[in-house]
Amino acid sequence: MNFGIIGIGCIGSSLAREIKHHKLGPLFLCDANQSYLDQAKTLNIGDFYTESLSEIAANCDIIFVCTPIRTISKILLNLLPNLKDGTIITDVGSVKGAIYQDIRASLRPEIHYIPGHPITAGTTESGPTAGKLDNFRDKKYILTPLANSCEAALSDLKDILQKFGADIDLMALKTHDQLLGFTSHLSHLIAFSVVQGAEQISQSVYSNILNYAGGSFRDLTRVAAADSQMWLDIFLSNKEELKPVLNLFRSQLTELEKLIENEDEEKLLNFLETAKTLKQTKFT
Amino acid sequence: MNFGIIGIGCIGSSLAREIKHHKLGPLFLCDANQSYLDQAKTLNIGDFYTESLSEIAANCDIIFVCTPIRTISKILLNLLPNLKDGTIITDVGSVKGAIYQDIRASLRPEIHYIPGHPITAGTTESGPTAGKLDNFRDKKYILTPLANSCEAALSDLKDILQKFGADIDLMALKTHDQLLGFTSHLSHLIAFSVVQGAEQISQSVYSNILNYAGGSFRDLTRVAAADSQMWLDIFLSNKEELKPVLNLFRSQLTELEKLIENEDEEKLLNFLETAKTLKQTKFT
Repeated sequence: MNFGIIGIGCIGSSLAREIKHHKLGPLFLCDANQSYLDQAKTLNIGDFYTESLSEIAANCDIIFVCTPIRTISKILLNLLPNLKDGTIITDVGSVKGAIYQDIRASLRPEIHYIPGHPITAGTTESGPTAGKLDNFRDKKYILTPLANSCEAALSDLKDILQKFGADIDLMALKTHDQLLGFTSHLSHLIAFSVVQGAEQISQSVYSNILNYAGGSFRDLTRVAAADSQMWLDIFLSNKEELKPVLNLFRSQLTELEKLIENEDEEKLLNFLETAKTLKQTKFT
Repeated sequence: MNFGIIGIGCIGSSLAREIKHHKLGPLFLCDANQSYLDQAKTLNIGDFYTESLSEIAANCDIIFVCTPIRTISKILLNLLPNLKDGTIITDVGSVKGAIYQDIRASLRPEIHYIPGHPITAGTTESGPTAGKLDNFRDKKYILTPLANSCEAALSDLKDILQKFGADIDLMALKTHDQLLGFTSHLSHLIAFSVVQGAEQISQSVYSNILNYAGGSFRDLTRVAAADSQMWLDIFLSNKEELKPVLNLFRSQLTELEKLIENEDEEKLLNFLETAKTLKQTKFT
């Protein structure tokens, strides 16, 4: 079986290292950036190097699309008509629903598209040097098979990822996008907003923030330093599922504010106690 | 000079240890909880032990009120009419404006009331055993002198606190309450609300949250496990200054959501880049 990886940044090049390490089969690496291909050659993490998507489509049986999230749909739309029957193709985008909406009309039963999302720690590096072996070991790797996904193809992909040490969870596209919306995207929306708000507070407060930005403030705003373009892509890709998540958060914040405004001590204490118990028992 | 401390929990008993350690003068400890007085006696962190506020008023020249925040006003109102002329009295409440509003009509020029707020790390312990020497060393200690505060009294109090290693900042009551509202209370309001929101998300998402509550979610919600009664007291005491802080945050979150909804990529990238730069340069 021939393997193909499109986009050889941190995730793509980590997958490449695993495929080589486990000697799974000939590996085609594809990137639009020639210098990334040169680096990959030097690192010896593939067998064939190409800028051509049609070369991948013509030769590969299992393909990983690992480009930035908003490029994934374009690449899938380009590839799908040209893939050999029976090809397994997956992607690693951190939002799943938007990609599926873009490409669903182009799917055909002979091609096994299985959306995926490896949960790996981010890195500030980019390109093939950013990847590493064991980048998936004991990390969550979500697969969101479609309703009519072929069991055998899913089983093949799971077997491969388990060789890399990944802890695989299966869930629906929508569940994935709400789950990540709640546990990751919401934290980022909040962090960006709090930091922006700081600029508009009175000068006497603003000039003191740095001295008092310890503990909870530092934790809350840590992720505001994350990569702007990546988060723009994620927010735009997940805009539909972010709405209910934001509404949920906002309604709770409004409820809390109302209890404070009305000095409703009994309900306020109950609100805080419930949150404390949930945090200590469910979200430790 | 005779010293008095009312409320011998973590902060009060830490101040007691400092006063004894630096041999500043005879020290009266006062608490409504007899077992706390017994513990303090055993620890030998005072010279006189009493449950009587009038004994403190009659004997002390410098008094620290270190009770839970919503008890402070009551104690000040009880003490103020009975204090000797020239007495310096301060408190350690983490919200300042509400206390001042409660007691301002009872202040008279012969008494030097200087509101204060030591920023020390919280502890899960309580009572006199929770305190320690050096609890104020290299920590911020905010004083919010009133417009007509006596310079000499302020200087005396600063000298004492500096002996304990405190890093003293002077600011207006309102600045203090907005500053803490923004850098501490807001983070807590958000954390309590996010955790409460989790309970209302769909079951398929909820059952997965624990597995995906790493990184940013864990940081964001860490403080939701804080003491409920203490935060109820803080929120209620600071309700006026929390309004503009919450409005500022909410307006930024709404702006961010609008940019996402409208897919206004240029302004969205600018919003995220500005936040990133602020975080990296001002709130590291």
